[in-house]
Amino acid sequence: MRKAEIPRGFRDFPPEVMRARIEVINKVRKVFERAGFPPMDTPSLEYWETLAGKYGPEAEERLIWRFKDPFSEKDYALRYDLTVPLARYIAQHPEIQLPFKRHQISLVWRHEEPQKGRYREFLQADIDTVGSPHIEADAEIINTIAMALEELGLDDYIIKVNHRGLLRDFIEKKFGGLSLSILRTIDKLDKIGEEGVKKELLRIGMSEAQIDELMVKFERLKLEEVGETLIRLYGSEANQYKPIFEALSSLAYRKDKILFDFSLVRGLDYYTGIIFEAVLTKGSPGSVSGGGRYDSLISLFKGEAVPATGGSLGIERIIDVMIERGILNLGKSIPGAYIIVIDEEAFMFSWRYLLELRKRGIMAEIDIMRRSLEKQKKRMNALNYKYAIYVGKKEMSSGSVTLVDRETGSRTEISVEDSFKLLEGEYKDEEAN
Amino acid sequence: MRKAEIPRGFRDFPPEVMRARIEVINKVRKVFERAGFPPMDTPSLEYWETLAGKYGPEAEERLIWRFKDPFSEKDYALRYDLTVPLARYIAQHPEIQLPFKRHQISLVWRHEEPQKGRYREFLQADIDTVGSPHIEADAEIINTIAMALEELGLDDYIIKVNHRGLLRDFIEKKFGGLSLSILRTIDKLDKIGEEGVKKELLRIGMSEAQIDELMVKFERLKLEEVGETLIRLYGSEANQYKPIFEALSSLAYRKDKILFDFSLVRGLDYYTGIIFEAVLTKGSPGSVSGGGRYDSLISLFKGEAVPATGGSLGIERIIDVMIERGILNLGKSIPGAYIIVIDEEAFMFSWRYLLELRKRGIMAEIDIMRRSLEKQKKRMNALNYKYAIYVGKKEMSSGSVTLVDRETGSRTEISVEDSFKLLEGEYKDEEAN
Repeated sequence: MRKAEIPRGFRDFPPEVMRARIEVINKVRKVFERAGFPPMDTPSLEYWETLAGKYGPEAEERLIWRFKDPFSEKDYALRYDLTVPLARYIAQHPEIQLPFKRHQISLVWRHEEPQKGRYREFLQADIDTVGSPHIEADAEIINTIAMALEELGLDDYIIKVNHRGLLRDFIEKKFGGLSLSILRTIDKLDKIGEEGVKKELLRIGMSEAQIDELMVKFERLKLEEVGETLIRLYGSEANQYKPIFEALSSLAYRKDKILFDFSLVRGLDYYTGIIFEAVLTKGSPGSVSGGGRYDSLISLFKGEAVPATGGSLGIERIIDVMIERGILNLGKSIPGAYIIVIDEEAFMFSWRYLLELRKRGIMAEIDIMRRSLEKQKKRMNALNYKYAIYVGKKEMSSGSVTLVDRETGSRTEISVEDSFKLLEGEYKDEEAN
Repeated sequence: MRKAEIPRGFRDFPPEVMRARIEVINKVRKVFERAGFPPMDTPSLEYWETLAGKYGPEAEERLIWRFKDPFSEKDYALRYDLTVPLARYIAQHPEIQLPFKRHQISLVWRHEEPQKGRYREFLQADIDTVGSPHIEADAEIINTIAMALEELGLDDYIIKVNHRGLLRDFIEKKFGGLSLSILRTIDKLDKIGEEGVKKELLRIGMSEAQIDELMVKFERLKLEEVGETLIRLYGSEANQYKPIFEALSSLAYRKDKILFDFSLVRGLDYYTGIIFEAVLTKGSPGSVSGGGRYDSLISLFKGEAVPATGGSLGIERIIDVMIERGILNLGKSIPGAYIIVIDEEAFMFSWRYLLELRKRGIMAEIDIMRRSLEKQKKRMNALNYKYAIYVGKKEMSSGSVTLVDRETGSRTEISVEDSFKLLEGEYKDEEAN
């Protein structure tokens, strides 16, 4: 006999959790669809060469699930994100009309050390626009992420934005070899605070004066103020960024929710333009979405550069937060009927009635163990159906059922036909919500 | 530059295909849910030891995607079906109340040689009941599969049933060492026909008389006839099977669709009782569902035997058939609006209008490339939106839009407010279908 064991860092999703996950996935899909991002999917595996050289050394050496096919000696890797497979797909299909917009909600795998809220297999929910170099495409990604968060009832979000060009022009050029460490350090501002950042910057070799100059730029700014502030801080070289942030402001679905944040870096190597990150302001901090423009990634697969921009919704963290906040209720009652068979003789009548309910689209359950009344009731209570329907000899002979609304306790004997109508009506109400 | 290549035997799903897949998945989930099988999920990976010894030597030596974790030297395998992970889950959670019913729609991986309709990664859609030894549980699985096929518009199904006990009692006992070959051969009846089966049985060493005796049992029978026929063929030893098939008959949702078929064997090792397979009778033959009782599998993980029964819907093949038959229409029009910006000055007005449509739940699209009228129209035609909405200086100044129903060609200038109402109404009609 083998010990039953789930792999470390992986999760089973029991029904009450899985229902909630599906509910969130379907809601997110709807928001994405109506913004013109239809669904697509790619394989869980890619050839290793497809992923190699895309995510930086840490991912490559420690985090990607890479393995050899036992039968053909090919090197494979489990999907690490949804962006590189999209780039591979676009390069492989030159016939695709650009701009190409799609969403993808799929599993990705990372060989992280498991801890609370961090797993080795988790869902990502991405939207991307391939083929448009215009700021409208970036704004649409950010707007759609904002709408998704609102649709999910997470109104306390703000979206931080920055531009990789700024980091390139004003940090990389100035600090050369030091710039990567500087970027990594300022990226931690939310986690370790201003004092922490200062200490680390000193440690990596920046002078007090340099640090003070850098830190003054960390104030979050409204989009309308960004252009002028950048020009004041960096001079005319910053001119080119002014119209970008002005356009972002006028195209924004909720510009009151968007703030410029120079400390926003985003870990991934492939970003080239606007980058963003959405955080919730209530409760424990942490990003719920991020993304940006990556105009060079696809050219790694294709002779030509293809502009692209996208965003990812942190659906796993969002589900956790929605449960924490009671937006998702794992124990909610099932909008259907549990049939209690009072007398053994009524079983076949009840079974036929059950099949008819299910055929009509109504969730219905009966005890398939043919157990006692007591045990049937216990089971019903555990399953949390909204209605109990009692069927015995009496009901059978009059072609009726006894229906109990388990929330209000009200009890009525009604004809089988009327019970169909009542439950079907109940169902339409549920669907409308 | 790397060549963009999808791994052999794997598929990308472009939007029009993915939409259809999601539609089928959601329909199937609903049928399963209302029969009391809520969703659950398990990891894509299991430890190799969990899968080892469950599927027979062919799967183990050739078909399971097995690999070593590059970082911890653990042996993993990609999920091969959804039944063994369920057994592992049940054994790992003794606190679960039995009977436990669930559905699972998830990917599985098999190292098959790729060919038309056969892939290395595909979806399975399973329902299972763990903890009930009763025929009601088997009947409910078969009934729910039948309802799912009907819900999907595949009414031409029949369900073949057999019982592993019969095969055990009347083939294994009689033919001993030969029985495995005999079972494998009669399992091919649908593929190679009666003559083909006879030839193979001769080849493996059965006598003409033995074969004739065996073949006479291959006629498909109505459920009510099974008991008497078995007793006539096998004598009183078959008595025990009569009530099983009688119960299956009286519990059946559509007993006219169920036929006993002694040649049904089902490949998997772990079945112990009733087995079944659903086939479509029109068009190219092939199974669309199969399953059965497996009372011993869970005991491989757990000290005690736990009875279980289940079925799997061949959702990949079903999607193919539904597309072939035109039940799924990949090119169907999108119930929303494509906004054509006539004059550049109307862009921001159109953009705000677009955001308002999306916020109200209406699918809406605009050109994010700021292109010419001609190019916008071309794009709209490619995307197949139901409505075109034209916005120019004229519309902007009167707070209206020009709405064209692209199916009927009818064109009206209406106020922005009225366009919301019209499109929202359209949407409710769509949802009700």
